[in-house]
Amino acid sequence: MTKPMREAYHEQLDEVNGRLIGMIRKTGELMGLATKALLEADLDAAEQAMASDSSINRDQLEIDEQVLELMATQGPVASELRIVTSALRSTSDAERMGDLAVHVAKVARMRYPDHAVPDELRDTFAAMGKAACEMSNKAVEVLRTRDLDAAAELAHDDNEMDHLHRSLFHVLLDDDEWDRGVEAAIDIALLGRYYERFADHAVHIATNVRYLVTGEIEWADSAAGH
Amino acid sequence: MTKPMREAYHEQLDEVNGRLIGMIRKTGELMGLATKALLEADLDAAEQAMASDSSINRDQLEIDEQVLELMATQGPVASELRIVTSALRSTSDAERMGDLAVHVAKVARMRYPDHAVPDELRDTFAAMGKAACEMSNKAVEVLRTRDLDAAAELAHDDNEMDHLHRSLFHVLLDDDEWDRGVEAAIDIALLGRYYERFADHAVHIATNVRYLVTGEIEWADSAAGH
Repeated sequence: MTKPMREAYHEQLDEVNGRLIGMIRKTGELMGLATKALLEADLDAAEQAMASDSSINRDQLEIDEQVLELMATQGPVASELRIVTSALRSTSDAERMGDLAVHVAKVARMRYPDHAVPDELRDTFAAMGKAACEMSNKAVEVLRTRDLDAAAELAHDDNEMDHLHRSLFHVLLDDDEWDRGVEAAIDIALLGRYYERFADHAVHIATNVRYLVTGEIEWADSAAGH
Repeated sequence: MTKPMREAYHEQLDEVNGRLIGMIRKTGELMGLATKALLEADLDAAEQAMASDSSINRDQLEIDEQVLELMATQGPVASELRIVTSALRSTSDAERMGDLAVHVAKVARMRYPDHAVPDELRDTFAAMGKAACEMSNKAVEVLRTRDLDAAAELAHDDNEMDHLHRSLFHVLLDDDEWDRGVEAAIDIALLGRYYERFADHAVHIATNVRYLVTGEIEWADSAAGH
């Protein structure tokens, strides 16, 4: 028996959502690998992270194409239009998350065999890495369940990330505490920004899902000073 | 006489392109204002820049919506599908360009009444600001004309920006030259990144137009070390 056309269409939209979930899951894995590279000065992990970003870039192209083709052939109604917008915005966020994880891996590789992160900031970066991976996983859950409470949780996690991010600057700008010079300080400031931006994009994915569900846009203020 | 439907549709696509051009033009103006705020420690300019970003964010929402509605009602053919993809990617790039200009303005405001940029780096930041605005203007030209030679020029301009960006680090990391401490160094490193990212997004807009014209994707390596 042939499925009704509309039903087949919704199955295809579910398939898109499934691929998007797979893409975002990869960003968390990539950030996990990059954080390992950073904390352990692990060159193999750094290079593995850098190599696997291309798979995320390819996901974006393929998912976007699939979404647009679906849309072109089906003439979606209003709520379906939101699925498209939400999906295209989310692939763009996930693509940036992959790039940011690669930035982290590149700093690890650039300083190898030294550690880019000094001992006194190791715990903070371990916490930022853990938070980043968890936020990526929560973004996956939000996409899977469309649970807006989980989306709100992500905003809360982002506050925690911002707190960790700010704490880096307390260490860097404390004359009594920081004696590792300018180059190391710049590494830390940029690394902090990569994690913080990664988290912003995870929040943004949740915002995209909220838009999908409610039709409402809420602009997260992604412009952060340091 | 009623216009043929397809013709009306293409007029609407042109209108979308026109709005996108207006949006990207604003990013150049905003970066100009933010750079003025930075170089002259001009608080008014900083606050004006921060306030005008909301208009760019609104543009993104409205243009994206218009694109998707057009698409939903028209069932575009393949080459038109590329217009949609290219437009949605470009509004996302332009939105980030606005955010990055705001970041620059925020650093200026944070250090006011001091100058965030020390005298010896003033010329470099003036050059980065000028390059950023020119690249935004060139992205506008590429969108207006779909001239792929102009798109290729943007990649060349980006090399110039990368060169300026790297030159910052030569100053920051030269022990004999840099005596302004860690906080100022971090400001400079982050500011440099904002300009460099702004330029990357301008290049990306040109890449989106190339995709529109040729159907080919060329992944700019946006992952830069520092």
